[in-house]
Amino acid sequence: MAFRATILTLYPEMFPGHLGHSLAGRALERGQWSLDAVQIRDFAEDKHRTVDDTPAGGGAGMVLRADILGRAIDHVSGDDERPRLLMSPRGRPLSQARVREIAAGPGAVIVCGRFEGVDQRIIDARALEEVSIGDYILSGGEPAALTLLDAVVRILPGVMGNALSGVHESFEGGLLEHPHYTRPQVFEEREIPAVLTSGNHSAIERWRRAEAERLTRERRPDLLSQPVTK
Amino acid sequence: MAFRATILTLYPEMFPGHLGHSLAGRALERGQWSLDAVQIRDFAEDKHRTVDDTPAGGGAGMVLRADILGRAIDHVSGDDERPRLLMSPRGRPLSQARVREIAAGPGAVIVCGRFEGVDQRIIDARALEEVSIGDYILSGGEPAALTLLDAVVRILPGVMGNALSGVHESFEGGLLEHPHYTRPQVFEEREIPAVLTSGNHSAIERWRRAEAERLTRERRPDLLSQPVTK
Repeated sequence: MAFRATILTLYPEMFPGHLGHSLAGRALERGQWSLDAVQIRDFAEDKHRTVDDTPAGGGAGMVLRADILGRAIDHVSGDDERPRLLMSPRGRPLSQARVREIAAGPGAVIVCGRFEGVDQRIIDARALEEVSIGDYILSGGEPAALTLLDAVVRILPGVMGNALSGVHESFEGGLLEHPHYTRPQVFEEREIPAVLTSGNHSAIERWRRAEAERLTRERRPDLLSQPVTK
Repeated sequence: MAFRATILTLYPEMFPGHLGHSLAGRALERGQWSLDAVQIRDFAEDKHRTVDDTPAGGGAGMVLRADILGRAIDHVSGDDERPRLLMSPRGRPLSQARVREIAAGPGAVIVCGRFEGVDQRIIDARALEEVSIGDYILSGGEPAALTLLDAVVRILPGVMGNALSGVHESFEGGLLEHPHYTRPQVFEEREIPAVLTSGNHSAIERWRRAEAERLTRERRPDLLSQPVTK
């Protein structure tokens, strides 16, 4: 079975968005993964298709109702084994390790919040995994879901083909990636570092490793104190 | 002058993507911001419109050429004062504080890398600000640029209207947001916490503050050790 993504959203027209192009788009056409965007309003029960209500305790904004979201989640996921994610700035920060786990599984059900938030009881009752893609506020869960899926789809079997093989990446071994250079040899009086054109492969390897360590130390010392994930 | 975003990309067809819908899409139609996606290949000089070459020092993947990217950047930005961003997992992690700064400025020129990376000399020569939206690897800079712009556009003047006013948000005061509840009063035998329906506004405020602190302590102790940004 190919990886199966189901999105619960008030804006199904935002999907597949950028995932309809390039590598992810071709993989979607080939059936290497599937994407189903489901309108949460279809699970409302009044004629205005209301999905939200004012927050208990007062305050600005609107809250997505637990009962309506519950029906939507149960309808699309039933008892399947896909993780149920809720995109939320309160969630656990997404890591490349979690991206790999999700990509190795059968797919994902992704709930996209809008407005002020989602009733806490549906998060508890359906054990939604709150996932944050970063420490900033988006207009809703949709841009976050598209970003998460982009990260997942690119590492699905067959999607990138040989394009990925052997490529060093940031966060591999807990380090940022070393700098890159290519032709021309001189650009605005800046030369490619001599070691890279020396032909000395072990010197090149040492230089790249040292640069990756230097960049990580300068920019992300927090990564150096984390357990290394491969 | 409205906020002006110019994207340099190999996939202009990915834009405006999800930003063409909902709040951002309506603001785009109203001219409250503008988006111009420019094809990097238009600045290549050979008939195959080649933009990349093999990495100096060997290895897998391809590197975007400094000379071609330089012409593209100079063409779209000239001497204007917009920040020039490069979406990259090696960059400084995007924060809500940086989002606010960008939104307060005249716009942004955003370079989207693909392949293995971008020649370091164009990053140095054009002082590109490397920005990371999170610790995971995407297929390219495009999903990251769309995410960054979503965060920026929602706080541009007039875009959300009153929808934003008075809303508490995660990262405000350095805390994650408290849980939300709304009707129905009982959902699957789970009740709304009694304090929220007590009508005691100062008790509600205290409960929300305590919950925000508890969630932050449990999930993101790293936020508590950072300087507070408003």
